Amino acid sequence: MVKELIGRDILGIADLTTSEIQQLLELAIQLKTGKIKPQCNKVLGLLFYKASTRTRVSFSVAMYQLGGQVIDLNVSQTQVGRGEPISDTARVLDRYLDILAIRTFKQEDLETVAKYAEIPIINALTDLEHPCQILADLLTIQEKFGSLSGITLTYLGDGNNVAHSLILGGALMGMNVRIATPKDYEPNPEIVNKAKQLNQNSTEILITDDPLTAIKDSQVVYTDVWASMGQEDKAQNRIPIFQPYQVNQQLMNHAAKDAIVLHCLPAHRDEEITDEVIEGKQSQVWNQAENRMHAQKALIVSLLGI
Amino acid sequence: MVKELIGRDILGIADLTTSEIQQLLELAIQLKTGKIKPQCNKVLGLLFYKASTRTRVSFSVAMYQLGGQVIDLNVSQTQVGRGEPISDTARVLDRYLDILAIRTFKQEDLETVAKYAEIPIINALTDLEHPCQILADLLTIQEKFGSLSGITLTYLGDGNNVAHSLILGGALMGMNVRIATPKDYEPNPEIVNKAKQLNQNSTEILITDDPLTAIKDSQVVYTDVWASMGQEDKAQNRIPIFQPYQVNQQLMNHAAKDAIVLHCLPAHRDEEITDEVIEGKQSQVWNQAENRMHAQKALIVSLLGI
Amino acid sequence: MVKELIGRDILGIADLTTSEIQQLLELAIQLKTGKIKPQCNKVLGLLFYKASTRTRVSFSVAMYQLGGQVIDLNVSQTQVGRGEPISDTARVLDRYLDILAIRTFKQEDLETVAKYAEIPIINALTDLEHPCQILADLLTIQEKFGSLSGITLTYLGDGNNVAHSLILGGALMGMNVRIATPKDYEPNPEIVNKAKQLNQNSTEILITDDPLTAIKDSQVVYTDVWASMGQEDKAQNRIPIFQPYQVNQQLMNHAAKDAIVLHCLPAHRDEEITDEVIEGKQSQVWNQAENRMHAQKALIVSLLGI
Repeated sequence: MVKELIGRDILGIADLTTSEIQQLLELAIQLKTGKIKPQCNKVLGLLFYKASTRTRVSFSVAMYQLGGQVIDLNVSQTQVGRGEPISDTARVLDRYLDILAIRTFKQEDLETVAKYAEIPIINALTDLEHPCQILADLLTIQEKFGSLSGITLTYLGDGNNVAHSLILGGALMGMNVRIATPKDYEPNPEIVNKAKQLNQNSTEILITDDPLTAIKDSQVVYTDVWASMGQEDKAQNRIPIFQPYQVNQQLMNHAAKDAIVLHCLPAHRDEEITDEVIEGKQSQVWNQAENRMHAQKALIVSLLGI
Repeated sequence: MVKELIGRDILGIADLTTSEIQQLLELAIQLKTGKIKPQCNKVLGLLFYKASTRTRVSFSVAMYQLGGQVIDLNVSQTQVGRGEPISDTARVLDRYLDILAIRTFKQEDLETVAKYAEIPIINALTDLEHPCQILADLLTIQEKFGSLSGITLTYLGDGNNVAHSLILGGALMGMNVRIATPKDYEPNPEIVNKAKQLNQNSTEILITDDPLTAIKDSQVVYTDVWASMGQEDKAQNRIPIFQPYQVNQQLMNHAAKDAIVLHCLPAHRDEEITDEVIEGKQSQVWNQAENRMHAQKALIVSLLGI
Repeated sequence: MVKELIGRDILGIADLTTSEIQQLLELAIQLKTGKIKPQCNKVLGLLFYKASTRTRVSFSVAMYQLGGQVIDLNVSQTQVGRGEPISDTARVLDRYLDILAIRTFKQEDLETVAKYAEIPIINALTDLEHPCQILADLLTIQEKFGSLSGITLTYLGDGNNVAHSLILGGALMGMNVRIATPKDYEPNPEIVNKAKQLNQNSTEILITDDPLTAIKDSQVVYTDVWASMGQEDKAQNRIPIFQPYQVNQQLMNHAAKDAIVLHCLPAHRDEEITDEVIEGKQSQVWNQAENRMHAQKALIVSLLGI
C-alpha cells in the first residue's frame, strides 16, 4: 500500500502528490501482475447518481479480488431521493461501510459527504473531476512509454471533468499537457491555474482551439464524448462545432509515430473518434479500460491500509 | 446465537419473548464489540417493495461481516411484477436462499411468504410493524440506560408501523410507553390491546393527543416522519395537524434531563424534529442507525443458528 | 468439472454434445447432493435486458456457493443504454469478469458478445433459446425416471425459446419430443430441422396442433406462459387460441399414469395450467426451479474449469 494515503479522501487528482501517484502506479502494476495479492473483508459502497458500466464493474471486481464486498447504492433505491440531506446519508453510511466511492454531479456534494463521513471517500466522477480515470490513464501511458515525465499528451474535445483531471494529473507528473477545445468549451480556468501552480517542472500546459498545434508530435492522443452524461440533448448541436477536433487518421498523422490513442469510453464512433482509429493499432482503449480496475484497486488498498 | 430462534420467522416484534429479546440484545452487544465473530456462507435475500437505505445497507453489511452473501431482489427486477402470485415467488426463493428479509406494504403478503417458504423470514418493514428498527432502538436505549425495564419512552407523531412495534416491544421489555398523536392518527387499537395483554409488569401504556402529558419526564423521546413512504402526497396537509407534536427544544425541556432523542430516519428537519434537536447533545440518531446493523446481525445469527 | 467445456461459450443447448450433457447432469447431481464442493474466487457478470427472478437468483446463489462473486449488470444502469455498441461493452466486460451470462432479445446480440469477449458466455435466455432452463429440465426428468433416453416429453403451448431448446436438448438425449401448438405458433422450422439432424437415435420429433395426440401416454408434460416477456399486450388475444392447449386434469388423464408436469415459471394459473395441476401430485415445478441452480452451477464449474 501507499502508507501516506491511509484513511484519506480522494476528491480530485491533486489530492495526491507526485510521489503518491508514482507509488500508486507501482502498486497498481504489482497488483496487475499478481506479485502481491492483499486481502481484506471490508465493504465498499458505490453511491452513484449517474449511469456507469466501467466504473461500477471495475470498482466491484477490484474489491472482490481483494476479498471484500460491494454495496451498489443506486440512488433511485436510496432515501437520498426522499429529500434526506446528503449530510445525513453520509453519516449513516459512515456507520456501515468501510470506504465509499461516489459518482455525482456537483463537486460540493462530494465534499459534503467527505466532511460528514470519517471513512475514505473516492471521487468516482463529478462534473469537475474524474481522478480514478486519470490514474488508469497514467498507468496506461507509463506501461507504454516506461515513464511519464516529459511525455506530451493532447486532449481534443470538450473541456470537461476528464480534461480537468488530465491537466492536473499531467502537471503533477511532469507531462506536457495540451488541450484543444472549441471556443466556449475550454476547461475551467481555475483548474488550469491550479495546474500551473502545481507544475514545478515548468513543463508545457497549453490551452488552444487549434487541434493541429495541439497534436503536433504528441505521444498520447486522448478524446472523450462531446456531450457528457446529462447533456445528451445538446449532442446534435455540438457535432458541427466539435468536428474539427475529431480524432481521425488524418489528424493522427500529425502526432508522433509511436503515439497511442486513449478514450475513457463509451465511444461514439465517427463523432469524437473514427472507427478506424479506435480499432487501429495505436488504440490502447481496452487496456486503458482494464487499468481502471488495477488503478482503483491500488487506491482502495492504500486508503484502507491493507 | 439465541438457540430458541433457529429456523423461526420474525414477522412482528411480539414474535419474540421478553427473554429472547434480552438474549438478542446481549448477542448484538457481543457482535458490536467484536467479542464474537460467527461466520457462515449463507445467502440472505432482500425482497424490497419500497425504497430503503438504512435497512438495505445495514442488512447487507451485517451479512457480509458474517461471511455471507446478499441478493437484492428489487421488485422491479423480479417476476413478482409480472403477475406471479407471491406464494409462487416464496416457494422458488425458498429453494435458493437461506434466509429472506422482506419490506412490503401489507402484513398479509409477508405472512403469505412465511407460510409458503420454509426458510426464516424477517419483517424488514410493513405497514403494520417494523420489528428490526425496534430491536435497534431497544439496543440504543439499553446502551444508554443500562437496562430497559422501567424506562419511559415517548413517541410523538404518526401512529404508524414504528409506533406499533415500539408499543409492543416496550410492553414486552417492561417499559412505560406513551404515544402522542393527533386525533385520527392513533395507533391501531388491536396493537394497543395486544400490548396491554403482553404487559405483565403492569407498566404504563398511554395513548394520548397531548404531547406535554406524554413527554413529561420521559427518558426516551422518539419521532418519525409525519408521512410514511407512499403517503408523500399527504405530507403538506399533515404539517399543521402534526405541528404540536414536533420534537423541538421547547418540548424537550419537559422531558427528563438525561433524555435521549431517537429518530428512525430519514428525518425531515423542522417538520417532525428541529435541526437543533437532531444535531444536539441528546440526539442518539446516528448510533441508533448503526445499531440497526448490530441488532439485525444478532437476529440473522440466531435464525440461521450460526 | 466437464473438462471439454473449459473456456467455451454456451449460446444454445446444441453447443453441447450428448456426452457433455450427460456429464453435466452427473456433475449437477454431485453438486446438489454435496458430494463435491468446488471453490473459486471468480466473478460472474449477469447482463440482463429482461426481468428475471429465477435466472438471476439461481445464477447468483450458484456462484456464491462456489465461493465466487456476482455483478448484476442491469441494463438500465449500464452504458449499453447510452448507445455504446454491444461489441465495445463485450470487450470491456471481458477485461473485468471471468464469465458472463446474458439475457437478451436477439440471438445475434449474444453472438456478438461471444465473438468480442474471450471469457465464457452463457445464454441466460434469448428469443431463440433457453439452454440453462433445459439443463434443469433434463436434470429433473432424469431424477424422476433414472434416465432420459426413450422418455417421451410433450410441450403444449407457444413454440417459443423454451420449446426450441427442449426440441434440441430432447433430440440430443434420445428423447421423444412432441410439440403441440396452435397453427401460426409452431416452433422455428430451422430448429426442428436441426433437431432432426442431431437425432441420431431416430426417436420421435412431432410437431402438431392436436394436444390429445401429443400428450397420449407422455411421461413429461411441459408448458410455459402463452405470451412471453415483451408480448404481454398480446396476452388477452391469445387466450382463446391457446385454450385447447391448457394443461388441466382432463388433458392430463391422457398422459402416462406416472407422468410429471413441468413449467419453467412464472405460471399464469388457469391460463396455460390449472391451479389443480400445478399444485397437484404430478407437479415437479418447484424441484425443477431448484434444479436451475444446480444445473447452472455445473455449467459454471465446467466453463471455468474449477
